Amino acid sequence: MSTNSPAPARPPRIVLVRPLYGGNVGSSARAMCNMGLSDLRVVDRQYRDDFEAHKMAMGGQELLKAATFCDSLQDAVADCATVIACTARPRRWKAWKCLDPREAAVLLAEQGQAGNDSAIVFGSEDKGLDNKDLEWATHLCHIPTDRNVSSLNLSQAVLLLGWEWARGQNQLHRRPARTRNRASPAMEQVNGAADQVGSLLDRIDFFAGRNRDQALATIRQTLLRSELTDTELHFLRGVVRKLHWHVDHGERVE
Amino acid sequence: MSTNSPAPARPPRIVLVRPLYGGNVGSSARAMCNMGLSDLRVVDRQYRDDFEAHKMAMGGQELLKAATFCDSLQDAVADCATVIACTARPRRWKAWKCLDPREAAVLLAEQGQAGNDSAIVFGSEDKGLDNKDLEWATHLCHIPTDRNVSSLNLSQAVLLLGWEWARGQNQLHRRPARTRNRASPAMEQVNGAADQVGSLLDRIDFFAGRNRDQALATIRQTLLRSELTDTELHFLRGVVRKLHWHVDHGERVE
Repeated sequence: MSTNSPAPARPPRIVLVRPLYGGNVGSSARAMCNMGLSDLRVVDRQYRDDFEAHKMAMGGQELLKAATFCDSLQDAVADCATVIACTARPRRWKAWKCLDPREAAVLLAEQGQAGNDSAIVFGSEDKGLDNKDLEWATHLCHIPTDRNVSSLNLSQAVLLLGWEWARGQNQLHRRPARTRNRASPAMEQVNGAADQVGSLLDRIDFFAGRNRDQALATIRQTLLRSELTDTELHFLRGVVRKLHWHVDHGERVE
Repeated sequence: MSTNSPAPARPPRIVLVRPLYGGNVGSSARAMCNMGLSDLRVVDRQYRDDFEAHKMAMGGQELLKAATFCDSLQDAVADCATVIACTARPRRWKAWKCLDPREAAVLLAEQGQAGNDSAIVFGSEDKGLDNKDLEWATHLCHIPTDRNVSSLNLSQAVLLLGWEWARGQNQLHRRPARTRNRASPAMEQVNGAADQVGSLLDRIDFFAGRNRDQALATIRQTLLRSELTDTELHFLRGVVRKLHWHVDHGERVE
């Protein structure tokens, strides 16, 4: 996890070209902070540096205040070796290959390791980047989406590129999780079993002097955590049913 | 890319518990649409289903209108075999392992393939999920962030989990990009070389009857696309300088 690893070298800067809404600029600043990015440049700002921007920035207010305002995209990326322009369509512009965010993250990481500055560039909310902007790009990046709704919120796109970059920096520090791939009982079945155990325990006055809800929650959590198969759950419920019967009709009847 | 692959089986539902702001619910609906998710459930809603929600939903308005409102988290996940609760802290709750979004995506994909329903659960913007909510979870998920700013915007967290899920579904359909890992000239150096070529071409009246700006842009793009090394760029500039000198003092002077 990022909190345990050294700060990565030369994070990319984020360049917002002609953003319209303060809320989106603020949210972008927050997203950058979340992902360890710090250099925000705003080109030809149309948005008002307003209440909405600062409200949405949350923990990113200092970053928002420190943002650089540039007159042109050229100024914003002049010292960069890699300039990745994000486009809402997977266009093939001139002869350039369109990267996806993970591929872009690999490129940015390599550039950072090679000591080169880099930038990720986002266009305005309504029109994106125009062809004139793309002249300053070295690569294009498109975020694959559902075919029916391709347009992402600006700050969400910033978050996503930041996430892929930060995740790529830290991927060696994570271990794979234990997973399972088999038919599992639904929550309501597990809950039914827990209730069944509850009834049984009621019958033997187990809860006297105890917090019944808390005890039942513990039982349910135990069942969930044990990742029972359908068969195991069926078996367990049979056991509980049998116990219940014996409590009602068993030893004491004899 | 998702647009070329068949719809994945059984996408997870998104459950928002006690969301406060309509804008975040709307943004979440939009993010879900972006990532091919369609089932939104809102538990114990505090937010007003207001103008802000519909404004932020953009292409996700139909999904927002179709959202299910549940009285409890238990109701919202009753038929799920896997319930992943997102927490802002990487807490170890009871004996449960905390997944990161990519690990969660693997689990969700496996559950989907196994024919099980699943849910990703997010808490309110100010307080997240409480321990009572976690009783209904089968797994926890924490989004790793920068240590200083760990709290993500609600809809950005939804987008990120959705992205990881959608990306995992389609990862076999992507090819790795060509990348480079060497010292590269900065944009301003490449631009300087292009300007130098421009001066040369001015000198020989190359632009007569042509659009000079467009021609120069083409030259700059060609230089950028060819991914020159510093050495190659230095060589090129030497060639152009020499040519310029010859145009000024060469053949015609003799």
